[in-house]
Parts: sequence; C-alpha cells; structure tokens
Amino acid sequence: MSAISDTLGGCASKARSGPVRMGLVGGGAGSFIGPVHALAARLDGDIRIVAGAFSRDAVRSREAAATYGVDPERGYASLEDMLSAEAEREDGIEFITIATPNAHHAIAARAAIEAGIAVMSDKPMTATLEEARAIVALLDEMPVPFGLTYTYSGYPLVREMRERIAAGAIGTLRKVVVEYNQGWLAGEASGKQAEWRVDPASAGLGGCIADIGVHAFHLAEFVTGARVAQINADLGTVVPGRVLDDDCQMFLRFEGGARGVLMASQIMTGEGNDLAIRIYGDKGAFRWSQESPNHLTWLKAEGGLEIVRAGDASLGVSALAGTRLPGGHPEGLIESLANLYRDFAGTLRGKDGSLVPGAYEGLRGMALITIAVNASRNGLGWVNLTV
Amino acid sequence: MSAISDTLGGCASKARSGPVRMGLVGGGAGSFIGPVHALAARLDGDIRIVAGAFSRDAVRSREAAATYGVDPERGYASLEDMLSAEAEREDGIEFITIATPNAHHAIAARAAIEAGIAVMSDKPMTATLEEARAIVALLDEMPVPFGLTYTYSGYPLVREMRERIAAGAIGTLRKVVVEYNQGWLAGEASGKQAEWRVDPASAGLGGCIADIGVHAFHLAEFVTGARVAQINADLGTVVPGRVLDDDCQMFLRFEGGARGVLMASQIMTGEGNDLAIRIYGDKGAFRWSQESPNHLTWLKAEGGLEIVRAGDASLGVSALAGTRLPGGHPEGLIESLANLYRDFAGTLRGKDGSLVPGAYEGLRGMALITIAVNASRNGLGWVNLTV
Amino acid sequence: MSAISDTLGGCASKARSGPVRMGLVGGGAGSFIGPVHALAARLDGDIRIVAGAFSRDAVRSREAAATYGVDPERGYASLEDMLSAEAEREDGIEFITIATPNAHHAIAARAAIEAGIAVMSDKPMTATLEEARAIVALLDEMPVPFGLTYTYSGYPLVREMRERIAAGAIGTLRKVVVEYNQGWLAGEASGKQAEWRVDPASAGLGGCIADIGVHAFHLAEFVTGARVAQINADLGTVVPGRVLDDDCQMFLRFEGGARGVLMASQIMTGEGNDLAIRIYGDKGAFRWSQESPNHLTWLKAEGGLEIVRAGDASLGVSALAGTRLPGGHPEGLIESLANLYRDFAGTLRGKDGSLVPGAYEGLRGMALITIAVNASRNGLGWVNLTV
Amino acid sequence: MSAISDTLGGCASKARSGPVRMGLVGGGAGSFIGPVHALAARLDGDIRIVAGAFSRDAVRSREAAATYGVDPERGYASLEDMLSAEAEREDGIEFITIATPNAHHAIAARAAIEAGIAVMSDKPMTATLEEARAIVALLDEMPVPFGLTYTYSGYPLVREMRERIAAGAIGTLRKVVVEYNQGWLAGEASGKQAEWRVDPASAGLGGCIADIGVHAFHLAEFVTGARVAQINADLGTVVPGRVLDDDCQMFLRFEGGARGVLMASQIMTGEGNDLAIRIYGDKGAFRWSQESPNHLTWLKAEGGLEIVRAGDASLGVSALAGTRLPGGHPEGLIESLANLYRDFAGTLRGKDGSLVPGAYEGLRGMALITIAVNASRNGLGWVNLTV
Repeated sequence: MSAISDTLGGCASKARSGPVRMGLVGGGAGSFIGPVHALAARLDGDIRIVAGAFSRDAVRSREAAATYGVDPERGYASLEDMLSAEAEREDGIEFITIATPNAHHAIAARAAIEAGIAVMSDKPMTATLEEARAIVALLDEMPVPFGLTYTYSGYPLVREMRERIAAGAIGTLRKVVVEYNQGWLAGEASGKQAEWRVDPASAGLGGCIADIGVHAFHLAEFVTGARVAQINADLGTVVPGRVLDDDCQMFLRFEGGARGVLMASQIMTGEGNDLAIRIYGDKGAFRWSQESPNHLTWLKAEGGLEIVRAGDASLGVSALAGTRLPGGHPEGLIESLANLYRDFAGTLRGKDGSLVPGAYEGLRGMALITIAVNASRNGLGWVNLTV
Repeated sequence: MSAISDTLGGCASKARSGPVRMGLVGGGAGSFIGPVHALAARLDGDIRIVAGAFSRDAVRSREAAATYGVDPERGYASLEDMLSAEAEREDGIEFITIATPNAHHAIAARAAIEAGIAVMSDKPMTATLEEARAIVALLDEMPVPFGLTYTYSGYPLVREMRERIAAGAIGTLRKVVVEYNQGWLAGEASGKQAEWRVDPASAGLGGCIADIGVHAFHLAEFVTGARVAQINADLGTVVPGRVLDDDCQMFLRFEGGARGVLMASQIMTGEGNDLAIRIYGDKGAFRWSQESPNHLTWLKAEGGLEIVRAGDASLGVSALAGTRLPGGHPEGLIESLANLYRDFAGTLRGKDGSLVPGAYEGLRGMALITIAVNASRNGLGWVNLTV
Repeated sequence: MSAISDTLGGCASKARSGPVRMGLVGGGAGSFIGPVHALAARLDGDIRIVAGAFSRDAVRSREAAATYGVDPERGYASLEDMLSAEAEREDGIEFITIATPNAHHAIAARAAIEAGIAVMSDKPMTATLEEARAIVALLDEMPVPFGLTYTYSGYPLVREMRERIAAGAIGTLRKVVVEYNQGWLAGEASGKQAEWRVDPASAGLGGCIADIGVHAFHLAEFVTGARVAQINADLGTVVPGRVLDDDCQMFLRFEGGARGVLMASQIMTGEGNDLAIRIYGDKGAFRWSQESPNHLTWLKAEGGLEIVRAGDASLGVSALAGTRLPGGHPEGLIESLANLYRDFAGTLRGKDGSLVPGAYEGLRGMALITIAVNASRNGLGWVNLTV
Repeated sequence: MSAISDTLGGCASKARSGPVRMGLVGGGAGSFIGPVHALAARLDGDIRIVAGAFSRDAVRSREAAATYGVDPERGYASLEDMLSAEAEREDGIEFITIATPNAHHAIAARAAIEAGIAVMSDKPMTATLEEARAIVALLDEMPVPFGLTYTYSGYPLVREMRERIAAGAIGTLRKVVVEYNQGWLAGEASGKQAEWRVDPASAGLGGCIADIGVHAFHLAEFVTGARVAQINADLGTVVPGRVLDDDCQMFLRFEGGARGVLMASQIMTGEGNDLAIRIYGDKGAFRWSQESPNHLTWLKAEGGLEIVRAGDASLGVSALAGTRLPGGHPEGLIESLANLYRDFAGTLRGKDGSLVPGAYEGLRGMALITIAVNASRNGLGWVNLTV
C-alpha cells in the first residue's frame, strides 16, 4: 500500500517543530464535517488549527475562525488568500485540510500542492476521475504529503485486522462482504448536508457510491491488502425524483480471484452508520462493524471464535499505537480520525505515515465511482477496475 | 401465497382422527435430516411416525425403525413396499416425509401422490426444474396436500415479519438483503452429509444454491410477500476440485421494483448457520437472524428501534400460534420445523395450512437454481425468474 | 453431586423395554408447565405419556388426557387411582411427573415412592423443608429414581461450563454472580399462573425465592461444583398487597471461601426470563445467559475472550450428548428439559443419569428457601446454609 | 442534585474570555489518568492546558510540560509554585485539574480553593471522609467552582436516562442493580497504576470501593435522582496478600424504599471496564452498559423493548448537548469526560454547569467508602449512609 508521500513540501524556512499547523478549507457555519475534522485534529495536541478559509464570505470566515479558536485575522475569504498570507508567516500553516463539498476538492488540492503545502483531503478525492489523475500526476512533479481521510481505516481494530491478515491469520483470501448501510437519505433530502449530496453539481457523478461507497471500498482493500480487479455494479436510485444513485450493490473480484460483495446504501430506513466488513480465508475469518468498533470477531477454520478487544495485550503495533485507553474504555470515530491526523502530522515531523491513505487510494476511489456509475448505467456487467 | 393444496388425498377408508400417521422416506443410519424431521414431527403429539422406508437395505431399514420407535415390521426396504403395505392397513400412513438426497425427491413424491398419500418433502423439491414442473402438474390432476420444509418459515418471528409487512409496517418495499452463510464446506467435504452435497449425481445441478440458497430465496419471498422477478447471479466454486457452486452472490429485482441482494455460501470459514434477512421499506425496516431467532429488530422511519421478542403480547396470530413458551424461554429450529409439521398435520385434519410452503414454492426454488446456475455459467447477467 | 438414585423401583413384573412410560400429575386445562413437560418428555421418542392424573375432576381429567394423546381411560381423577390402576397393567406407568402447584409436590412424591414408582418432580421439591427431609429419608428406605426438573441444568453449554470448571478451566473459584430476572409479576398478579405463585397456601413459604430463586441457586452449585456454605439474604415484597417475597438479593459464601451474589426478582419490569450466571476463578471466567443459551463466553486470565458455541467440535461429552443439531441451529428450553427427561429415562433403562438433579438437590433448594425467608424476616444477617 | 457551585472564584483581574486556562496537577511520566484528562479537556477547544505541576521533580515537570504542549517554563515542581506564579500572570490558570493519587487530592483542592482557583478533581474526592467534609466546609466559606470527574455521568445516554426518569418514564423507582466489573487486579498488582491502588498509604481506606465503587454509586444516584439511604456492605479481599478490598457487594436501600444491589470488583478475571446499570420502576426500566455506551435499552411495563441510540431525534437536551456526531458514529469515554470539562469550562464563562458532579457528590462518595469499609469490617449489617 503506497499511502502518503514521504517527501516534505517546500517552504523550508518554516518552523518545523512544535504542533503541526493546520489551515482548514471549508467548515463554516452549518458544516458537519469541518468540526469533526477539528475535533480529531485537536485531540492529541500535536496539531494546531491556526488558520482557515472557512467561507467565501469574509465576515463569515472571520466569525467561523473564532469557533475554531483561530485568530479572526487568519480566517480568510479564499484558499488563495490563505496560502499567500500564510506563506509570509514563519508560523504559517504547514498543511491544509479540505472539508468542502466534493466539487471543490481538486482545485483546493492543486492550489496547495503548487504552493508546496501538504494536503489532508476529505474523500472522495475529487469530483471526477480526470481530476484525480491530474492530482496524482501533479504530486509526481511537486511532491508534498497528501493524506485522505478514509476515516475508518484509523480504527485500531481495523488496523489489527490488516496486520493479522498480512501475517496470514486467515490464510488465502476467498471472500469479502463489505457493506455501508445508512438510512438518513431514505426520505426527501433536507438540510445542507443532505441537499448537496444529492445534487450532481456539488457531489459529482456519484451519489451514495461517492459519499460512502468509497469508504467501504477502501476498507476492503486496506484490510485485505488486495486490490479489486473487476466489478459488476448495480447502482440504483430509489427515492423518487433523485438523480444520483442512493443504493449500490456490487459484485467484486479481487486480484488473486477472491470473490466479494459491496453494498452501500443511503435508503436503508432506520440504519445509522452501519459500515461492516467480513473477510473469509481458507484458514479463518474476521468480522468487524463500525458501530461496535472495539470488538473484532475472529473465526478459525478449526472451529474457535475469538473476540479481540481494543486494549487486549495481544494487539499488534498498529492497533496499540492507535489506542489511547485501556480495554473496556470505548474509543470512537473521533479517535479513529485522530489516528489519521496524528500519523499525518507525524509525516510532517519526519515519522512514518504509511498507514494514512494517500492520493493513490484516492485515485482508486475515483476510479470506482466513475467505472461503477458508467457500467451500471449502461448495463455493462463485469468491467475491469483500472486507475 | 398459494401454499399447500387443501384437497385431501384418496384412501377415504383410512382413519382420519387421532395423531396423523407419518411414514419417513430416508433417515437411515448416518442421516442428519431424518432424525431432525422426527424430532419436529413428534414434538407436539399430533403426528405419529408409524412406518418408514429408511434404507434400501431391508435389515437396516428394520433396524432404523426401532430408532424411530417404529414397529420393525413397518420398516420397509422401499417406498413402493411401504405404500402398498400401508394401504392395506386401516391405521396406515397418511403422509410421507421425504428426507433423502435431492436426486430421489421427485420419484418419491410422484409415487406418493399417485397413491393418494400426502407429501411433506425436504427442499429443494426435486433435482431438476422439469421434475418440479411435472410434480406441480401431477398435483393438479391428483391433488394431495403437499408441503415443503422451508424450515425457517416456521419461526414465529419470521411469520410475525410477514404479517406486519403485509399490514404495512414498513410501507413500500424497497430493498432486501438476505444471506445464508455457512462454513462447514470451507474445507474438503468429508462425511456422508458433505459428500453427497458436492456430488452432482446426488445433489443435482446446484450445490450451495440448492442446499441453502433456496432457503434464503424462499425466506425473502415468504416474508415480503413479493416475488423476485429478475436475478443477476454470480455463482462460484471456491474450494479446489469441487464441481458444484459453493459460493453464491446474486442481485435481485422484485416485482414492483424493489432491489435486493442474496448471498449464500458454504465457504464462509467459521460461520455456523447464519441465515439472516433485512427488509427495508419507505416507512421502516425489519432485521432478523436465524441464530438469534427470538428477537426481531424493527426500525422505524421516524427514528425508533424496537426489539420485538417472541412471547411479546403484541405478536400477531401466526407468531402466537407458533410459540409454545412465554417470552424469554428460547425456542429454536426444532420448534420452527415443528410448526410446519403441526400446520401440515392440521391440513390433514381439515384445518388451514396456508402458511406451509407448498409445491409452487418448491417450483420457484427449482427455477431459481436452474436459472441461476445457467445464467452464471454463461455470463448472462440479468435474467427473468419465471417458473 | 449425588443426583438421582440409581436403584430401580419395585414392580419387577413391568415391561422394562421400549419407550419409558410416564404418568403426569397435574397439567390439566390452563396449566403452563404440564404441556411443557409433555413437549420435553415426548421430544426424543424414548418416553411415552400413557396416563395422567390431570385434574381432580374426572371429566376434566379424561378430557385433558386426549390433549396429551393419552387414552381417556387412563385419565384419572387422582394420583391414588392412577397408581393403583396402572399397577395392574403390564404396560403401566414407570414414573410420574409432578407438575402441580408446590403445595402438592410432597404428597404426590410420597405416594409414588411408596408404590415403587419413580418420580420426576417439578421444583421446588416440596412446600416445606420438613417435607423435603421426609422425602429424602423415605428414599433412603424405599429407593426409586428421583429427578428434579431444574430445567436449566439441561442446557448443553451449562453442562459444558460444569465440565470445564471441573477440569480446571478457570482455576480456583473466587466469585459467582447468578441472577434470575423476570418482570411478569411486576404488576398485579392475574391469571392462574400468577395467582397461585403469590398465594402462600399454594406456593408455600417462598414466593420468588421458591419459584425462580432455587433455579439460580441450583445453577450456581451445579456449574461450580461447589456448595454454598453461608448466605445473607435480603428478601423483599415490592408490589403492594403481596404477602410473599417478589424480589430477592443475597450474598453468598461458598465452601472454600468464594464470594457471590444471587439475585432473583419477579418485579424487574420488562424482563422476560433472564437467568444468567458469571463465574470467576483466578485463571479465567465463564459467562452464560439463558436467553441466549447457545453461546458461552470464556474469559482467560491472560487476556483472551472466546465464544464457545453449541455445536463446536471442542465441546465435551456432556454438552455433545445434550445437543441434537449442528452448530448454528438454535436449540432452546424444551430441548434442555428434554435432556433431563432423556437422562432420567435412561436411568430407568440402566444408564447413567448422574447429571439429573435429584432429591438431595431438591432438599438444598428447600433449605435455601426456608433459611433465606427466615433470616431475611428476622434480620439475621449471615447464616449457615445446612440441610 | 446540587452539583458545582456557580460562584466564580477571585482573581478578578484575570482574563475571562477565550479558552479557559487549565493547570494540571499530576499527570507526569507514567500517569494513566493525566493524559486522559488532557485528551478530554482539549477535545472541544474551549479549554487550553497552559500550566502544570506535573511532577515534584522540577526537571521532570518541565519535560512533562512539553508532552502536554505546555511552555516548559510553566511546568512547576509544586502546586504552590504553580499557584503563586500563575497568579502573577494575566493569562494565568483559571482552574486546576487534580490527577494525583487519592492521598494528595485534599491538599491540592484546599490550596486551590484558598487561592480562589476553581477545581476539577478526580474521584474519590479525598482520602478520608474528614477531608471531604473540610473541603465542603471550605467551599462554603470561599466558594469556587468545584467539579468532580465522575466520568461516566458525562455519557449522553446516561444523561438521557436521568432526564427520562425524572420525567416519569419508568414510574416509581423500585430496584437498581449497578455493577462495575474489572479484572485487571485479579492477579498480583504490578506497574505504577496497580501498585498505588492496592497500597493504603496512597489509596486511603478503600481499595476497589474507592477506585471504582464510587463511580457505580454516583451513577446510581445521578441517574435515578434518588439518594441511597442505607447500605449493607460485604467487602472482601480476594487476592492473597492484599490489604484493601478488591471485591465489593452491597445491598442498597434508597430513600423512598427502592431496593438495590451494588457490585464492584477488580478481580473479575477477564473483564475490562464493565460498568453497567439497570433501573426498574413500576412502569418501565432502563439498562445501560458503559462498554456499549451508545445504546440504551428501555423496557416498558406494557411489553415493548426500545433501543434508544445516541443521535436519535428523540433525545432530550442534555443528551443532545453531549453528542458531537450523528447516530451510528460511536463516541466514547474521552467524549464523555470532555462533556464534563466542557460544562465545567462553561461555568467559568457564566453558563449552567449543573450536570457536573460537585463537592457534595464527592462527599457522598467518601461517606460511602468510609461507612462501607467500616460496616463490612465490623459486620454491622445495615447502616445508614449519611454524610
């Protein structure tokens, strides 16, 4: 897994010690994900949010700054303003977090990369596959650390599954069932969060597939260490009047031949945020569910069923590093996302950040969205998933 | 749902009171399902096993008779012998239960029907779709009660789901996920039970799809009251050297447009008998899992999550009728199968048996197997599911 | 654990082969537990209910006989009639099952023992400790097999816990928490089942302690293999107007020094039949809950948590013998009680029945009731639990 | 519930806007709870840790400062140094958090109160009941906001239970079972965390009762809104060689007559941090478990079982205020503690902090420890719980 680039960006004159300095793009009044990024970035004390292009409205951006504990002077009306102003400061931002609707991801990432500023981007990486390819190409030319907040890969027991599978715990991979069931768009979309997600102008080509399908997809590849080679996608739009997909079901074929099913839906009435994965090999299996993230079920071919608990002494290095509390003290989504932030911040201080999803993972997600939407619309059946 | 015929068979001279008299076909030494049928048939006291063609070996059949509490004289070496000998007795059998490998189902059913004897058959109804069509045709000519042991439809909370869905509890059907995960054939098939299931000569065209996929399929149709109109099947053979499918994944499209996924697998290492269904409508949803059969989750569009428990005062007539104990006293699979037997026996005493799956349901299962295997082998993508 | 006597009763002229012949005492119209006994006794085919003193009303007893599949001629108006009439028959009853309110247990047991007929008795064994002592004394003089339906000890995983604990799986016993939470008497008692349980004339000295507390108590002793040496009981009557206890909490001290808590309550609003036990040793622990009987949690001192499932290949002989179906096929309370019946029937055919609770266990239960009620009423604090 | 004083402390010249400024007492290298306080205090951005008396060793305190993101100059070698130095600064600390072993709580609290600095103290409030009384008396004279980190009362669904019970959701309180099961001291205590807890010199009079028993006790009183009037305590020391109690079981009697059981143990081999409460009234009941904090079970007298989920639209104001993420996105212990911090910080900015446990709750906890230890050692049986 390639993960984030380990090349530091330019601006060598900047201070490279103390808490890593972050600028937030998006996250103004009414944002859901902006505050979540802030909670996670702030948790461990190794990142400080010092600036933001919170809103395109100058007054609102300054007001938003205050809610993030940021000096209002550093609440900018545009990313460009932020990049140029912060470049002048010795204590200027070292990376940006992109927390805007999907349509604006690419332009923000490009601007930062060109300014030599590292990027932590929300998913999906961009609105189109072409944009994603362009960013990967740009990073080849002008490398900066680039992280993608596939949040769920930060959970300790997700990392534990990955580590154990890589070590052979379940033998040869045979079957993956990954699903992401939500119900909050089962009715008419209302409210800022819902409305942009069902609007092609803001969300891009994919609806549910882009909003949550890519999480499920990344989780499957991250945990198994195997790439999906082919998909057969059946995307549907269930709620009358909606344009984008809101219910996705997909057969998977992994490199190496393992079979799989991916389900992602936002019309599963009553479901909360039910991301779950089951992975079967010839020697064993794992089951994990995001709504109960501190337990991992390990089924063994010879018959045993073991519950691995966050905090267990048997956990491997990646899970231990991602755990703050002893067993029985629940940690949740903020801590999971904080693990990505902490690792990403570590990269900016010269540490290993290889567990943080990077631009290549983002590109794969965009390929999934694009190819799945296209294949489903045109009834193509099985298609290759190439980036 | 048509379910079993309500026409009594011939042999009007037979005694039609007291416990219903059953003859078992199959179930000799080493049989798994024979004794299970016996446990269930016997449970409520309204059926008595009085004869059997337990084995084609006369000695073994007599020996097996004793293990079922049957007079060894009535342990026959063939179904034909049983039918003719029992026809002579006033207290002769009133119905047979077919518990042989799939390849023998049709011939046994045919013989009984022609003798005017009612039939309770294990699933799948036959080895081929043609056989199933022939039996349905034969029943048109020579009607006798015909039941099919889609065992799981006997669970009280399965019936409760069906009743509530029919009454509008979840509104318009939108999405169904039904799955049946087993791990016992994840390795080499060994032992009598495993061996015939992976052998085309005994099992017929389908492996996993025929052994457990039809259970999942029937559950989906039974509970929703909706027919699957189209399928897109991806059947695979995972264990090296195996001929029949052992891992099935399928997209479903129901009449009315609801979408769905059916998964059935026998290579889910470590899984026991994980049949589970989730059904989403625009007003609510149900989730039920066979391994925890006495709880039913009801999600409501407006936000609530209710656990319906076996024994709750709120249960409807079909669930109450299928419950023997107060809440908190677990009932299980034997009781579920016994519900089918009790209802079937009731039919032979003039009561309503409409909840018992019948020949038409068997025919649909055979259509599923045949069409899915054919479509998957030939890469046909979406195909109609017609009987 | 002494368990049932292995001495066969008199009446040597009776047939001692084929299904064991049972006569039911109690179980007439409106009875809850009578039909449950019948379901369990009948399940495996090795017992046949052939007679009964179902009701003191001759007509009703004959009517009830029919509902049990018993020849109405053998539906007697009293136990005495049944014992004398059946003694005349070569195919007469071999044992009685006592399923009456508590107040009648002792007289029925005594009559059967004196007639040389084996006894399967519902719990508590008697209405008073003196009656229990008298029965134990009588059995010393006139031994017949005597079983007590502490139903929950028949669950396979309960037997598995017992076997593993005896083999050292959790090391030295330190702590036991056993609880039995019901809610059905949280309101006014109404209906036949509720009314006699809260009436001292029918139920005896204890309410909740006698109805369900003894189950919890027996479970603790059965599973740990350790006797409770001392108790400190706090019994209360919560529902206004009630005379007997309906909420019990008790500290336990086991021989050997292990500590414990027993809770039994019938005013736990909303609870079903939540019998659960947790047992801690210095090397590990077990947790089991009756409402989910097919899973057993095994905690290990070194950190692991294993789920033992009914049907697992690792199960010991007693659990395997008590399991009818493969893993993942739920069995429940009827099967658990059927295990006691099967073992008891086996005793009458010369097999080992040592897992069936016997008169000594019944006596201990009566001692618990008597001593706890007395100590609690009089504020005695810690008292010895001696029989 | 009285909760924290709403009187601001002295030092009127200090800045009273922006993030509230905290000084940590304790939390040096090897501390478990210090970093947890920091994570929670930092989470929402409304508190900034600006100073600390992390260690009595000046060098270590400065080193520790860095790990908390604190200017090393403000890492003091004693609380006294911190209080006097910070008093000189306009941006000096506004409150201290006490995260030392129990023996040092009182002296630290007293020093801060006398300096007019608010106090957030870990539990138990002090090492002795006398110290607790003295602090309550001192606060009467010199009021400052005083909070106590009964961490679990910050969970949204705990607050929801409290709110619903106060609104009559379960009717009249009848029965409470609260338990706190841990296994980490089931063996020999090793490591800094374990060692001081089993050492009377550091821990005070109580072992398990002081470490976790008070959490369970406070939870019971917090949620029910009822005070425990009497207790009957059975405290034991199970691990050989240990002096303090490590296993507590206690009967409770609440004002108004409700009955209860409190269990707290640190020798429950294999258990993590299993704090759980069940509360029964005549109209319904709640069940909640800390290891699964985002679900709350609501049992209703008329038969229903509802699962209340964090994020549900039906939640009341206190739960909503304590929830950062939508339903299905797990929050955990850090967030729960952060809720106490956020509310406490709010008090220092003039908002309501009445949900934060205060000195009176601390005093009750100390009374519990003292009275329970004394009563158990001397076999006193039922005793009054008065502060």
